[in-house]
Amino acid sequence: MNDLMLRALRGEVVERPPVWMMRQAGRTLPEYRAVRAEVGGFKDLLMNPDRAAEVTLQPIDAYGVDAAILFSDILVVPEAMGLPYNLVEKVGPRFPETIRSRSDLDRLHAVDPERDLKYVLDAVRIILRELDGRVPLIGFAGAPWTLFCYMVEGKGSKDWALARRMLWEEPALSDALLAAITAATKSYLHAQIDAGVHLVQLFDSWAGSLSRDLYVQRILPHMQDLLEGLQDRVPVTVFAKGGSHFLGDLATLPCTTLGLDWQTDRRWARDLANNAPGGPKVLQGNLDPSVLYANPGTIRAETHRMIDELGIHRTIANLGHGLYPDIPADHGRAFVQAVKEYVPATERETTTSA
Amino acid sequence: MNDLMLRALRGEVVERPPVWMMRQAGRTLPEYRAVRAEVGGFKDLLMNPDRAAEVTLQPIDAYGVDAAILFSDILVVPEAMGLPYNLVEKVGPRFPETIRSRSDLDRLHAVDPERDLKYVLDAVRIILRELDGRVPLIGFAGAPWTLFCYMVEGKGSKDWALARRMLWEEPALSDALLAAITAATKSYLHAQIDAGVHLVQLFDSWAGSLSRDLYVQRILPHMQDLLEGLQDRVPVTVFAKGGSHFLGDLATLPCTTLGLDWQTDRRWARDLANNAPGGPKVLQGNLDPSVLYANPGTIRAETHRMIDELGIHRTIANLGHGLYPDIPADHGRAFVQAVKEYVPATERETTTSA
Repeated sequence: MNDLMLRALRGEVVERPPVWMMRQAGRTLPEYRAVRAEVGGFKDLLMNPDRAAEVTLQPIDAYGVDAAILFSDILVVPEAMGLPYNLVEKVGPRFPETIRSRSDLDRLHAVDPERDLKYVLDAVRIILRELDGRVPLIGFAGAPWTLFCYMVEGKGSKDWALARRMLWEEPALSDALLAAITAATKSYLHAQIDAGVHLVQLFDSWAGSLSRDLYVQRILPHMQDLLEGLQDRVPVTVFAKGGSHFLGDLATLPCTTLGLDWQTDRRWARDLANNAPGGPKVLQGNLDPSVLYANPGTIRAETHRMIDELGIHRTIANLGHGLYPDIPADHGRAFVQAVKEYVPATERETTTSA
Repeated sequence: MNDLMLRALRGEVVERPPVWMMRQAGRTLPEYRAVRAEVGGFKDLLMNPDRAAEVTLQPIDAYGVDAAILFSDILVVPEAMGLPYNLVEKVGPRFPETIRSRSDLDRLHAVDPERDLKYVLDAVRIILRELDGRVPLIGFAGAPWTLFCYMVEGKGSKDWALARRMLWEEPALSDALLAAITAATKSYLHAQIDAGVHLVQLFDSWAGSLSRDLYVQRILPHMQDLLEGLQDRVPVTVFAKGGSHFLGDLATLPCTTLGLDWQTDRRWARDLANNAPGGPKVLQGNLDPSVLYANPGTIRAETHRMIDELGIHRTIANLGHGLYPDIPADHGRAFVQAVKEYVPATERETTTSA
C-alpha cells in the first residue's frame, strides 16, 4: 500500500507530505459527472453503494492523491435519526421537518448503522475490496454543531441565527439534541471503522458561526464525548471551518490531526499544534481553494510556500476547504503534482518557484 | 449634544463607552415595521428621504443609543455606478446584470453623488435638521471588496468563489473594477461628510472570504486609497467582518476605529490596537448578537464582560454584527442599558454580574 498518509499521521519522518483534496470525489471530474448523469440526483448516487464506490475511487487515478475519501454526505446521519432531507440542485439541502421543540426531538430515534446506514457501510466494503490496498480510505461524519444547525434550521443559512437562538433560549433542549447527534455519529464512525476505513474526519463546517466561549462551553464537551475512544482505533482529523479563534481549544481534544481553513496563519498553527497538551498534532491544510483558479505556475508556487510554512513532517497537504465545482481538473492535478515535487526552500532554485 | 461618541473617538477619558448597534435602524422595531408597511419595500423606504430619516431617528429614543446611523444600504453605490439591484423579500439582493468582462465594466460610469445619490444626501440633511444635535450621525458605505463580490456574482454567496476566481483569472480587470468602486465610494463618503455626517463606517462584510495574502496584496491598496484624506475630515471606522486574520494589516490603515466581529479575541485586539503603527486605534464591538436572544441578566453579564475585556477608553460598545430581525426590542434595550450601567469589575459586587 501507499502508506505515506498513515506514516505521516504517526508522526514519522516522511519524504514529502501526503496529499488529498476535500471534495476530490465528485463535482469537478468529467468521469464523476458521467456517473452522476446515469444515476440521477446526488442523493441517488450516494445511496447507491456500487456507484458511490466508483466515484470514491476515481480521484486516485484522476488526481494522483494519496488517499480516497468516501463519497457521501454529512446529512445521512440526521436522516438515519428520523429527519429526512432532500438535496435540491443549485439550491442546497432542505429538511421538510426540523427540530424546534422537545416533541420534535422525541420523534428522533437512536441509530443502528448496519440498519439505518447500511448503504454507506456497503459502499465502504466495496471500496476497500476494489481499492485493493492502493491507498488508505478516509471515512467521515458531520460534527454535532454542524448537524444541529441543519436539523434546527432545515436549510443552509448565512449566520445560523435560529440555531444559535436555540442555544440561548433552550439550553436543555439544545444539549439533548447535541447529545443525540453525538451518540448517532459516534456509532456511525465506529461502524465505518468496523467496515474498514483507515482514518476518519469530522467536519464542523459551521464552527465559525460561534464565539469561542459558546463553542467551548456548549459544543466542545460533545466533541470530547464523540472522540473518546475513537483515536485508539484509527487516526482522527477535526476540521472546524472558520474556527481558528478556538484552535487552541480544539487542540485539547483526543484527535490526531487539526484541519485548517485558508484563513488560518500556518506558522502560528504549527506552533500551537507542536505544543498541544496531549502531544503534537498533525496539521492538514490549507491552500485557499481559489488559488486553483490561477495558472499552474502560481498553483505550484503557492503550494510550495504552504509546505514551507507548515513544514514537511506532521503535515497533510490539502485545500483549506472543498474543491469548487468549476475548478478545472488539470488545476487539481497541478496542486497534487506540486506537493509531490516539493523540495525544501533551502534546496530550491529561486527561478523554479516563481 | 451628547458628544460621548466623539470624545471616545478622540481618545479622551470617558465615563463609560458610547453605545450603538449595527442595524439598529430597521428590522427589530415595531415602529420601523409600521413605516415600512406604509412605504412598501425596503428599497422604496431607503429611496424616500423623509421616511428614511424617520427610521434613522427611531432608535435614539427606542433604544437610547449614543449615535444614529443612516438608514440605507451598501448597494446604492453599484446602482449609482450603473448596475441596478433589487431587494427580494426573504431572498436578498439580486442584480439583473453583473460585471464579468471589460465591456461590462466599460458600461459603468463615475458617480456624481449629488446627482446619482441625491436621495441619500437629502435624507442626511433631513436627519441632521431633525436630530437637532441630540447625537452624532454615522454615515457609511460598503468597502470595495464587498461591493465587488455583489457586482461580480449578482447575489449573495456562501464563499464568493466567482468573485475570488476573477481575482486570480483576471487580475487587471479585477483591479480596474476595484478602482472604479473605490473612486465612487470615496466621492460618496465625502459627499456624506459635506452633507454633515459626524463620522463614517466602511463595511467590509465579506472580508472573511479572502486569505490574508490576497486581502493584503489585492484589496488593501484600494482601502488605503479610499481612506486617504477621509480621516482629516471625520473619524472613520473600518469593520471587516471575518477579517481578524488580517486585523494587524487593517491597523496600518489611516482610520480611527477598527470594528470587531464576535469571533475576535478582545484582549488580543486591544493589544494590537494600542500598538498600531500610526498610533492607538479605537475598537468597536463585539458582543455576539445571538447573546441578545438570552435573558436580560445574561445580556447584562456578557455586556459587562465585554467592556471588562475591551476596556472603557477608546471603546465603542456595539454588537459583533447587525441585530438579527427576530431579536426582541427589549433585549436590544437591555444591551444598551447594560453599557450605560457599566461599573469596572473591581468596583462591582459579584452578585450583580451573575
